[in-house]
Amino acid sequence: MNTAASQSMVCKRLLVVGIGLIGGSLAKAVKDRGLAEEVIGSSRSTATVERAVELGIIDRGDVDIEALFGQLEAGDIVFLAAPTLSVPNLIRQSRDAVTRGVILTDGASVKGNIEKAVLETFGEYPPTVVLGHPIAGSEKHGVEAANPLLYENHRVILTPSPTTDAGAIAAVTALWQSVGATVNLMAVAEHDRVLAGTSHLPHVLAYALVDTLSHRPESQNIFRYAAGGFRDFTRIAGSDPTMWHDIVLANREAVIESIDELARHLDKIRGFIDTEDSDSLMQVFSDAKSTREHFLQLLESIKSDGT
Amino acid sequence: MNTAASQSMVCKRLLVVGIGLIGGSLAKAVKDRGLAEEVIGSSRSTATVERAVELGIIDRGDVDIEALFGQLEAGDIVFLAAPTLSVPNLIRQSRDAVTRGVILTDGASVKGNIEKAVLETFGEYPPTVVLGHPIAGSEKHGVEAANPLLYENHRVILTPSPTTDAGAIAAVTALWQSVGATVNLMAVAEHDRVLAGTSHLPHVLAYALVDTLSHRPESQNIFRYAAGGFRDFTRIAGSDPTMWHDIVLANREAVIESIDELARHLDKIRGFIDTEDSDSLMQVFSDAKSTREHFLQLLESIKSDGT
Repeated sequence: MNTAASQSMVCKRLLVVGIGLIGGSLAKAVKDRGLAEEVIGSSRSTATVERAVELGIIDRGDVDIEALFGQLEAGDIVFLAAPTLSVPNLIRQSRDAVTRGVILTDGASVKGNIEKAVLETFGEYPPTVVLGHPIAGSEKHGVEAANPLLYENHRVILTPSPTTDAGAIAAVTALWQSVGATVNLMAVAEHDRVLAGTSHLPHVLAYALVDTLSHRPESQNIFRYAAGGFRDFTRIAGSDPTMWHDIVLANREAVIESIDELARHLDKIRGFIDTEDSDSLMQVFSDAKSTREHFLQLLESIKSDGT
Repeated sequence: MNTAASQSMVCKRLLVVGIGLIGGSLAKAVKDRGLAEEVIGSSRSTATVERAVELGIIDRGDVDIEALFGQLEAGDIVFLAAPTLSVPNLIRQSRDAVTRGVILTDGASVKGNIEKAVLETFGEYPPTVVLGHPIAGSEKHGVEAANPLLYENHRVILTPSPTTDAGAIAAVTALWQSVGATVNLMAVAEHDRVLAGTSHLPHVLAYALVDTLSHRPESQNIFRYAAGGFRDFTRIAGSDPTMWHDIVLANREAVIESIDELARHLDKIRGFIDTEDSDSLMQVFSDAKSTREHFLQLLESIKSDGT
């Protein structure tokens, strides 16, 4: 390896556990850009590991995760990209490696239950654990969906604890930035509350709307008359039920709080309609439209200047 | 005019009242295809009428709607494409023309309040009134947005009464079919209930979600962390507030019934999350996903075979 290449290295070895859309995309982005000496992958399936090597997503891999953890040294980075509910067990398996100074991060959509598993495994927050959440996804999944450009212009939230090593935070930040993402730091509770509102609640609402309409007596016909707005609105009800089942249970309290908040605002709007309170109804609809336009401008500004 | 062209005529004169996206698109489709001897337009604004002539949307137009109604003869068709709450007044203005046998249809999103205006104006359902609702839209609006292909592969619901003249129903059906739409007949109450579920409720929910999040203390930040799913989900909260204010008030009872239905289903799902009833939660999410996939297949089948 030449010196020019090693200047842009973000770590010696990157181990990605779970080589689907989320893990495979990071692995391939790092490998394509030569950001690590070696990109290693792990999956529960031998076929997936073999396919990932074939597709140039990883340099090598193994289903034996404990063996792979055993090969890592201080400063190497592990990215756990497995389903939310299996991350706690992986954290327990990573214990020796993390104790040796291996940097551990993850991509689970909820952070509170992962933090709990970290504290249960280690007794305290190890300095090299930097939990995170890349805000990216796609309707595709699996190793074939790995896309090295997935994280370009996307946000990644990291939720370090006050005792996390600054070097470990810097390493994980550099890893994400080097594949095109924008990194923000946030407290675990804030992360889970924000994501409950912007992601978990909309999914629950989309599932609830389809559930509501499919229980109507005329359900055989009702979807025939739905237009494009309905199709967009319920797109997320086509998401993987297991994944969303796991997420809403992992973030149970914040999700329930968000549902209750929404129910109060919906009931307020229901009241405006019921009493034909035209002014209040116009106000709430107009405000929502402006707020959303403001939000779209924010998204655009992320794309244009990377902040 | 030659005989070949007149064989495909759907009416002698078509008068479109309101030359925006909905009205202008029908006018232009009819004019482009030579489906009427004359396509006439009316708008509250002289500039819009002039622009519509310039753009080849109508042959001629006038802001004086009463004068235009006066020129129509039995068998001519009027399409009222004005905002929902102004349609009742237009119906009153059309009284003499309709009494002479002019066919009247409309494009309002709610039919119950329009039916009420018809009954108040005429005392009974005139044989040539065929209310309707093209299920089509766009984020664009105004005369510049008129698109002669807007109705291709879209559904139009007509809601004739049992005493409506079969010839009038056939004429309005032919009008819509000739511009590429699929026509279905439905009772007014069923239409309003179905649309409350598939269109009005999703809009209320999107507005309610944005309203909920914008009232949070961290609202300045929350939209920064929203991903594509949220953007799609709330797209309809960017719709015209006045239009949706009018629609939900015009369809007040069915919308409130739909909100209450949704609230019950949301509360059921909330219960599954709260009690960690994993099986029931998986069931409702999986069923919603399959239902939505079934719905997408239905939409595809409309596109492919026009049924």
